Amino acid sequence: MTHPLFSLQQIAERIGGRVDGDGEYQVSGLGTLESADASLLSLYTGTRYQQQLNATAAGAVLISEEHRAQTDLHAIVVDDPYAAFAQLTHLFDRNSTVVAGIHPSAILAPSARIAEGVQVCAHVVVGEGAVIEAGCYIGANTVIGERCIVGENCRLNPNVTLYNDTVLGQRVLIHSGAVLGADGFGFAPYQGTWFKIAQLGAVIVEEDVEIGACTTVDRGALDNTVLRKGVKLDNQIMVAHNVEIGEHSAVAACVGIAGSTHIGKGVRIAGGAGLAGHITVADNSYISGMAMVTKSVTQAGSYSSGTALEPTASWRRNVVRFRQLDQLVGRVKELEKKIKEIEGHS
Amino acid sequence: MTHPLFSLQQIAERIGGRVDGDGEYQVSGLGTLESADASLLSLYTGTRYQQQLNATAAGAVLISEEHRAQTDLHAIVVDDPYAAFAQLTHLFDRNSTVVAGIHPSAILAPSARIAEGVQVCAHVVVGEGAVIEAGCYIGANTVIGERCIVGENCRLNPNVTLYNDTVLGQRVLIHSGAVLGADGFGFAPYQGTWFKIAQLGAVIVEEDVEIGACTTVDRGALDNTVLRKGVKLDNQIMVAHNVEIGEHSAVAACVGIAGSTHIGKGVRIAGGAGLAGHITVADNSYISGMAMVTKSVTQAGSYSSGTALEPTASWRRNVVRFRQLDQLVGRVKELEKKIKEIEGHS
Amino acid sequence: MTHPLFSLQQIAERIGGRVDGDGEYQVSGLGTLESADASLLSLYTGTRYQQQLNATAAGAVLISEEHRAQTDLHAIVVDDPYAAFAQLTHLFDRNSTVVAGIHPSAILAPSARIAEGVQVCAHVVVGEGAVIEAGCYIGANTVIGERCIVGENCRLNPNVTLYNDTVLGQRVLIHSGAVLGADGFGFAPYQGTWFKIAQLGAVIVEEDVEIGACTTVDRGALDNTVLRKGVKLDNQIMVAHNVEIGEHSAVAACVGIAGSTHIGKGVRIAGGAGLAGHITVADNSYISGMAMVTKSVTQAGSYSSGTALEPTASWRRNVVRFRQLDQLVGRVKELEKKIKEIEGHS
Repeated sequence: MTHPLFSLQQIAERIGGRVDGDGEYQVSGLGTLESADASLLSLYTGTRYQQQLNATAAGAVLISEEHRAQTDLHAIVVDDPYAAFAQLTHLFDRNSTVVAGIHPSAILAPSARIAEGVQVCAHVVVGEGAVIEAGCYIGANTVIGERCIVGENCRLNPNVTLYNDTVLGQRVLIHSGAVLGADGFGFAPYQGTWFKIAQLGAVIVEEDVEIGACTTVDRGALDNTVLRKGVKLDNQIMVAHNVEIGEHSAVAACVGIAGSTHIGKGVRIAGGAGLAGHITVADNSYISGMAMVTKSVTQAGSYSSGTALEPTASWRRNVVRFRQLDQLVGRVKELEKKIKEIEGHS
Repeated sequence: MTHPLFSLQQIAERIGGRVDGDGEYQVSGLGTLESADASLLSLYTGTRYQQQLNATAAGAVLISEEHRAQTDLHAIVVDDPYAAFAQLTHLFDRNSTVVAGIHPSAILAPSARIAEGVQVCAHVVVGEGAVIEAGCYIGANTVIGERCIVGENCRLNPNVTLYNDTVLGQRVLIHSGAVLGADGFGFAPYQGTWFKIAQLGAVIVEEDVEIGACTTVDRGALDNTVLRKGVKLDNQIMVAHNVEIGEHSAVAACVGIAGSTHIGKGVRIAGGAGLAGHITVADNSYISGMAMVTKSVTQAGSYSSGTALEPTASWRRNVVRFRQLDQLVGRVKELEKKIKEIEGHS
Repeated sequence: MTHPLFSLQQIAERIGGRVDGDGEYQVSGLGTLESADASLLSLYTGTRYQQQLNATAAGAVLISEEHRAQTDLHAIVVDDPYAAFAQLTHLFDRNSTVVAGIHPSAILAPSARIAEGVQVCAHVVVGEGAVIEAGCYIGANTVIGERCIVGENCRLNPNVTLYNDTVLGQRVLIHSGAVLGADGFGFAPYQGTWFKIAQLGAVIVEEDVEIGACTTVDRGALDNTVLRKGVKLDNQIMVAHNVEIGEHSAVAACVGIAGSTHIGKGVRIAGGAGLAGHITVADNSYISGMAMVTKSVTQAGSYSSGTALEPTASWRRNVVRFRQLDQLVGRVKELEKKIKEIEGHS
């Protein structure tokens, strides 16, 4: 498959930039300064990358007016090269097309309603009463449960599972292996065993949400689990029942959020963090990687926990000392008392 | 789809309660005090929720004799409102039905045996020699390997994978994306590379086990990996080869259990904890969230590790100090020695 | 299904060992000393297991010359019993066969090319332009995207997803639920929202790599994400965009590796560790379980972080003290100063 070619002039028009160099020069894609060849357009975001700019084999570069003088390459001059680059990635993306049509191997329940212009791939299964709105792409082997609603222009990649009653707003993007609407982990202790509490809520996902591969969002116990508009979830995240994540919050991979916790708007959570249940996290907070959040975060800010990497030999000694830390503080207190006594005597 | 209606009298009979109010009053479901409207039955579990009780729009409430006087709502009076609620969730659950029949798109190996009354959904694949007992539900796109045995009344949701030789007892519930029986991670080091050890054991799951979405339970190396009866596993848990988890132990999401570790009975492990291989955890222990368990837990009790969340700025200073902790203890020892000398002089 | 039988003589020839005992004795498999019966061959790797050797019911044992005298069992004497055992596991493995043929329910795009001798199981979907080389096994319900290349003798278990453009070398083994090539987590902040950066790179997997169940490897942003030859990934691992993992490195379950991080050759990472983005890890390093790696590891060695498990009651006191650690160091400094003054006076 050949890649389509674009002239620098065509690209500049698309992103509102100005060509400085040969506007007829054609590129077939984007590349980093290190790896791009003459057929690719690269980007320069600042003097930190000057060395790479000097050495690059790229055919042209996205650059700001301020840095234009630093290279002789054909250039598209823009205010914000990174933002322009983000926009251009979609021009060269071959993996987000929708070719309307329903593959004959798909199994659609009689009462399911599929709008015009939807692509339903091979072996998709859609349950009774489900609705898939216009412009959606439903990847191979994806299962959409009963009464689900999939808003316009959603993209569900292969092997996604939506349990019954899941609702997606417009332009939701879900990656393979993700599971929405499995039972929340709810049991009543009963004579040394666990009595299951059926999970009667659903999962509600608002518009422009992205959900990563193998991420799981459980259905609510009675009320719903809710992802507000613009939320971005990376891979392998666990969102438990009745969690709510506020608008435009972004959660990196491997984060676990326990039941009924409410994350505010514009929150960023780095990879591997864990949040206890029934707490809240203030708008615009930042939780660092692998942090353990056991209490509510009531004020915006950056929060962390854990200890830093060190050679295992010294670490072994320090962890022993950690377990004696409270005792050590007692010893220091005792010393302070004694010093005070000694000072009093002299 | 309309929800079936039940009168308070019908519900009271089902759970052994007493109606205090209008027994003919009808409800269509359950709701929290905060979100229920007049069509829903709610529950009141204690004075911590008095304010919500006062403000609720619920049509009726499950309540104990002790608290009955606190509201004028129609009530079903029971000994334990939470247990009654747990029971009632199943009355209103629409997602656990089984409609016997084998979808024509399912691929069943000639030697597979499917009992009466089983529902096999679209695109299910069942391997040679597999047995699925009566009353099971096998969700769409689920794959059941060769020689698997699925006991009576199991429920496998869509996109579950059972590798060859997996055995499930009765009433096992498995959520989407779960994988049972993949190879344990076993390699012999060989001249700077890894020589794979074929994993010849299987996964044995006893009755009444629940396994969450995207949870993985690896097959044993020679012996089996075993989940004893009543074990509850949440989502995204990793159970490595030859692990055994004892009866009625419950494991929250994102926990990893390394190879050959044996968890006792009635153990509770909170989210994100990690357990090293070849250790044991005593019956009825509690491991707190994100705890790191590197040695056997020999006595029941509650165990934890890690540090608590704090502002990143102060955390940065403290982690530096952690790496100097053993040295700090040395400094305190030195001070104690000197103080003793000074005290000896005076 | 009956297991094939092998005589000790046959086995000895296969692994270059010497029978000491009845060479005609037949075994049907391998077992641990504890669980093997007379039909199984076991292994003895050293005096640590002497008690188990004395008590075993195994029919025969793999043993070194050095330890041969410790038992009267039929034996196959070999230089390295563990290596011989690793080799023999494949003799008894029933789950790695390939029966060439394409199941009629598989959906192969017209331009996909499937070599001779490939087994394509039920409900597999293969996209346009994809190539599957000779000897591959593609498990049920697995989806292979457009333009993917699957090298000779790969094994993809059921429910694997390869996004478009994924490339696998020879003998790659992928377990169920794994997802290769989902979008990297890349967004440009834009007026309080996140602007998606289309991920234009791919995932390149070299020969002899194993990828565990529910492990996710994201496609690169511009360049590729690369797993070098012989890399072994356990289950539930997250490999973010543009990561590179060097030859023969092994990563245990539940590890997360953030974007653009480069792991060297022969690195071992224990379960649950987390690695920040844009760092490097030196060849042959060892990262211990649940360690948090936020900076590059520039020298081979063993590295750790975190604190050790302790009873929750004492842990609670110690974590409070951790947050006062920097302050405690200040108090110790103050004491040291005062002591010096006192010593100066006397």
